[in-house]
Amino acid sequence: MSDRVVVALDVGGTGMKCALVRPDGSTLHTERHPTDAGRGPDAVVDTILAVADGLAGKARADGLTPVALGVVVPGVVDEARGMAVWSANVGFRNVPLRELAWTRLGLPTAVGHDVRAGGLAEARLGAGRGAGHVLFVAIGTGIAAAHVVGGSAAVGAHGAAGEIGHILVRPGGPRCGCGRPGCLEAVASAAAIARRYAELTGAPASAAEVADRASAGEAVAGQVWREAVEALADGLATGQSLFDVEAVVLGGGLARAGARLFDPLRAAVHERMTFHREPRLVPAALGDEAGCLGAALLALDSLEK
Amino acid sequence: MSDRVVVALDVGGTGMKCALVRPDGSTLHTERHPTDAGRGPDAVVDTILAVADGLAGKARADGLTPVALGVVVPGVVDEARGMAVWSANVGFRNVPLRELAWTRLGLPTAVGHDVRAGGLAEARLGAGRGAGHVLFVAIGTGIAAAHVVGGSAAVGAHGAAGEIGHILVRPGGPRCGCGRPGCLEAVASAAAIARRYAELTGAPASAAEVADRASAGEAVAGQVWREAVEALADGLATGQSLFDVEAVVLGGGLARAGARLFDPLRAAVHERMTFHREPRLVPAALGDEAGCLGAALLALDSLEK
Repeated sequence: MSDRVVVALDVGGTGMKCALVRPDGSTLHTERHPTDAGRGPDAVVDTILAVADGLAGKARADGLTPVALGVVVPGVVDEARGMAVWSANVGFRNVPLRELAWTRLGLPTAVGHDVRAGGLAEARLGAGRGAGHVLFVAIGTGIAAAHVVGGSAAVGAHGAAGEIGHILVRPGGPRCGCGRPGCLEAVASAAAIARRYAELTGAPASAAEVADRASAGEAVAGQVWREAVEALADGLATGQSLFDVEAVVLGGGLARAGARLFDPLRAAVHERMTFHREPRLVPAALGDEAGCLGAALLALDSLEK
Repeated sequence: MSDRVVVALDVGGTGMKCALVRPDGSTLHTERHPTDAGRGPDAVVDTILAVADGLAGKARADGLTPVALGVVVPGVVDEARGMAVWSANVGFRNVPLRELAWTRLGLPTAVGHDVRAGGLAEARLGAGRGAGHVLFVAIGTGIAAAHVVGGSAAVGAHGAAGEIGHILVRPGGPRCGCGRPGCLEAVASAAAIARRYAELTGAPASAAEVADRASAGEAVAGQVWREAVEALADGLATGQSLFDVEAVVLGGGLARAGARLFDPLRAAVHERMTFHREPRLVPAALGDEAGCLGAALLALDSLEK
């Protein structure tokens, strides 16, 4: 039936991206709401359920039939049990989101991980479309990945697959938020680039500003940018060694640096390919709606099972 | 029917392990033959087909019905097309093994990768039995892995998934056979351990001898062994970050070092786990028959498709 829609929510530390999405992946309506995580996890869950209920109500008012709900959150997510296991940003600890949503809305609910959902959407509807094996890497404050094969993202045994930000690339290097030195995230995330530049110059600058200054020929910015690109290339080469994908899709804030990132990164990845088949390295196409579209895909997929 | 068997061959650079295997995974008969790769790839293919034909004939003579053939080889294997794409040890370049076997034997044939097949067998019949997500790592002259989820091994887009030997662990470190410096294989394979020990002492020794001397308190051997264990732990931690498995199964020659490997390696992996769920780290259970059993499983699986 063409009037079927799913309700999709991508819950982040600061905001929620919400949508009504048709089975063909087209978006009918979007909303954004603050998460206001400081209120505590119970209040955030209340908001999630209220927003989802409101969207389902809007769908019905528009003559549509909401058939399922998809909610994606950051952190560790047990998709099989529909549980938000652990999330630093949102404060979740073992929240049975699927059960709570079913009780409140009476809709079958899929619970997923934000980056894996974003990767799913990029692989099926975005920059990875047509490739059977895709690695999606989101580079922002942190770095995380989703390995998507045949249209589904690897979840892992405990909902923690894809943590490419925490692979070792620089032994003895900068300490990562996770506690270990030399993780990819500690060298090549937007936050790490800003931190490194401030360390060397004493002047604060965002990663985007470092990219601008590197392009303008500023030596220190150039060095910081090169270090990050080299580390990213090491991380992506490790990913390719293990996953052997056709396409690597880069998303998140850092990917907005465009050619300033992609030109040197493609060259550095190329240099590292020996026996590997070199993957296409492409920017994400869905912007910050990837997670929400992925939530919709998870909801639609759950109906087929 | 209880008289059905599959013919299974694991073709290595020096020898072929061959078996008749029942659908329940039990082995009825085994044979070993030299590969004699120096004769060139055409001669090796002839031997493979003759040995397989002989085994099928033996099965029939014993009142059994051979229903499929499984052949696994090293290198890059395109399992979907049944093609041995590239193998340094055996000299294969784009050999259409499945087609050749079908023509000669009239049996449906599955072609697979030796390490992925070994991982499949360990995950389903060996040390990983009962775990849904397993990483099998074979450490010998080289290092390679198989990621097995739900009873099947990830193949990758081009048949090259699982190359954990070629992830970067020591930037600027020893040059690997693949041409890049600092690969896991260049630091922690049995060959790398022997090489490093000879470098430091001027005296040749196998990795097993280095393990013995390290246990006996020899300082240089202890240092070389520790360096290898630390690098392996870094590699396994990277694997766990990306795959999130329940069990890591170690096979290959180096795993025979037993507690001398597993005790320090478990401690070193444990130290590297931050947000991760720590995997069980266990020795392979099927010895050098894992690849051949995996070939049998691939043949059986192909019948179900």
